Amino acid sequence: MHKHREHLHGHHHADMISVEDARERILGFFSQLGTEERAISDALGQVLTEDIVGKFDVPPWDNSAMDGYALQAPDIADAHPDAPVTLDVIGSIAAGDVPSQSVKQGAAIRIMTGAPLPDGADAVVPFEDTDEGERGMGGQTPDEISVRIPVPPGGNVRPAGGDIAAGTTVIEAGTVLRASEIGVLASLGFGTVKVIRRPVAAILATGNELIEPSEAYQPGKIYNSNSYGVAAAVHASGGIPKRLGIARDTVESISAALQEGMAEADVVISTAGVSKGDYDLVKDVLAQHGRIELWSVRMRPAKPLAFGMLSGNDGRQVPLLGLPGNPVSSLVAFEQLGRPALYKMMGRGDFERPTVQAVLEEPIHNYDARRVYARAIVSKRNGTYYARLTGEQGSNVLTSMSRANGLAICPEDDPVKQAGEVVTVQMTDWPESVF
Amino acid sequence: MHKHREHLHGHHHADMISVEDARERILGFFSQLGTEERAISDALGQVLTEDIVGKFDVPPWDNSAMDGYALQAPDIADAHPDAPVTLDVIGSIAAGDVPSQSVKQGAAIRIMTGAPLPDGADAVVPFEDTDEGERGMGGQTPDEISVRIPVPPGGNVRPAGGDIAAGTTVIEAGTVLRASEIGVLASLGFGTVKVIRRPVAAILATGNELIEPSEAYQPGKIYNSNSYGVAAAVHASGGIPKRLGIARDTVESISAALQEGMAEADVVISTAGVSKGDYDLVKDVLAQHGRIELWSVRMRPAKPLAFGMLSGNDGRQVPLLGLPGNPVSSLVAFEQLGRPALYKMMGRGDFERPTVQAVLEEPIHNYDARRVYARAIVSKRNGTYYARLTGEQGSNVLTSMSRANGLAICPEDDPVKQAGEVVTVQMTDWPESVF
Repeated sequence: MHKHREHLHGHHHADMISVEDARERILGFFSQLGTEERAISDALGQVLTEDIVGKFDVPPWDNSAMDGYALQAPDIADAHPDAPVTLDVIGSIAAGDVPSQSVKQGAAIRIMTGAPLPDGADAVVPFEDTDEGERGMGGQTPDEISVRIPVPPGGNVRPAGGDIAAGTTVIEAGTVLRASEIGVLASLGFGTVKVIRRPVAAILATGNELIEPSEAYQPGKIYNSNSYGVAAAVHASGGIPKRLGIARDTVESISAALQEGMAEADVVISTAGVSKGDYDLVKDVLAQHGRIELWSVRMRPAKPLAFGMLSGNDGRQVPLLGLPGNPVSSLVAFEQLGRPALYKMMGRGDFERPTVQAVLEEPIHNYDARRVYARAIVSKRNGTYYARLTGEQGSNVLTSMSRANGLAICPEDDPVKQAGEVVTVQMTDWPESVF
Repeated sequence: MHKHREHLHGHHHADMISVEDARERILGFFSQLGTEERAISDALGQVLTEDIVGKFDVPPWDNSAMDGYALQAPDIADAHPDAPVTLDVIGSIAAGDVPSQSVKQGAAIRIMTGAPLPDGADAVVPFEDTDEGERGMGGQTPDEISVRIPVPPGGNVRPAGGDIAAGTTVIEAGTVLRASEIGVLASLGFGTVKVIRRPVAAILATGNELIEPSEAYQPGKIYNSNSYGVAAAVHASGGIPKRLGIARDTVESISAALQEGMAEADVVISTAGVSKGDYDLVKDVLAQHGRIELWSVRMRPAKPLAFGMLSGNDGRQVPLLGLPGNPVSSLVAFEQLGRPALYKMMGRGDFERPTVQAVLEEPIHNYDARRVYARAIVSKRNGTYYARLTGEQGSNVLTSMSRANGLAICPEDDPVKQAGEVVTVQMTDWPESVF
């Protein structure tokens, strides 16, 4: 094995490209997608393409911050619990009412939180600073009210435009819509909003040996897992996955699937068919549909990668990302190279996962000068992050991926990261209970 | 104002409950929901209710880890680049093929990665350690092949069951399904899976003054923002929001909406109607439909809260969570009290947000001995987290929430956290580019 490793080191260095190079090349072929108008209730996670400008003051009028009595502050300047000031109550205003009366000197209007402040009034005194309770009116409006404590002019009044003045840009184009932005849009009367549409990713599996997970087990066959794992990863990234099913290892089958994918998708993601085996027809078929390159990316797992531009029958150009066939490789390659492409189409630059610095509990070996993304479980003890590996790191052991919450990195030029060394871990999952 | 604040301090302490108490009481009324069978492609984020046990070995057969030649290792024990060993090639096996021949001493079968190892063979030598390239066969199977390097028995062979032996529990009940788990399920031939169903949250807004964001602006009216903000927060938490629309301030309107909510939902979330104003009918109407309590939670914003159990016409009990009417209050209360309830129904215990310790850049004042959740923007500079507040913290200024990525906490018993002090921040959003 030693000789073999040396051989790999010597053989692959020159024509391998770094993960960053591969990502940059790939991103160069993707653009932000077009705009669509969406109901705000369906736009969570999408990116605004318009500045949202308030069309009216919020709140739209001076309004009461309390349930109480609207009045003229000077009238009660000398009020005191031992010497309350009594005012005539000339009406009441509920939230949603438009005031029809104005408040003159010596008068008050009963008012609910949020209700517009009537003309003439400049302050609100809350119920508990009056004798309303003692009057035993059961919530009915009394004829007069005694006020025990003064309130300054403007007291308990929320001014018109105090939250958002008309004409203010409230949310800028480029913002990702979260629950609070959806709430703001609603409060400003935006029932729909212009956002970047979500990318559609057509996902193609190839191989005579593949069957779908809904099919009965057959000796000699392998369940198609890549399409489902990658589709879920596309979904979790905000894209819309469309599985094209399984193409067989014939030119006709692969071509038909590619045509379908090109017609309906913003990117075609294929799995398998990119290594050097001569049964890997995909790359040859791809070459008939566009320009395609095979890359060796300096990473483990997921070294072999195909990338290119397909030309549909209608002349439309669709990028193709050809992921390796091993289940772990396809997910790691999607994570490093596919997710950033989806994010770029969605108008998002924040594709980088959060990273932590973690103490390794086991070594990561790097046999052939590639960057190793080792599946790891990160936990925190006494304020320090620790990373242990999820067992066997072979690129076909998908269970190693399923137990992991992060990818612990051994750099290209380091032959090993020993137990006890601190490494960078990309957090693919952020299990909130741990942190 | 000073007097007023003292008044609040004195008045509310005794009957206020802590956030933790409120959460514990609320969670006591929620249970994990029932199981449903879902296609794996629709189950992302749901929790397994069955142990997933491998039904067959993965891989199902000894198979080749390389494109190369399957052979008997002893035959090539003395192979050397200067003294290659030549074997008869008696056939070829593609991935997906079932081998029909066996390998005898002195023979080899050309084999693709993943293809089953033929009987008799115990190792695979890769193409590049043979003279296949020099033979210029263009991928056709030659009659014989010369091997330049020995391979030990088992070399480049992935043993049957090496990833997952039949009968092994691969994913345990209680696991949240992510992309990698979906991939594992597919690889094991699970097209569907038993998971806890997602909770349906019926969301009710009440108020004569409310109009929907799709309606034209009308002076005197306020756009319903709470329903949309809370619905988006429910969605982002993995629940299924159902907006019941706006009930007017009449017993009939609120009762009708509640009946609809009880019929179709696992929880009813109302906004507004829980403070002390006498136009707040909701609590009276609720009392007609079940047991309802009004709580003062020792938090700012979002002190007033209603909680109880409604009884539907069919006798079904449905919990009601009555959030305050201010837009920020409703989202903060949902975050602290609603989201944990949804998580419990979904079978997830990990509702806690990740927290960071951050240096405050502005003070947080605590006027009335409640825990303050101040909307904050957390950033990281030179390895240290800093939190600045998002301007005006009034509970009706929803824009403060929309700019925030976290809630910076000033504890109940601290009258102020000064600029420069380190506070705990709950990260409501985890903008990956920042960390």
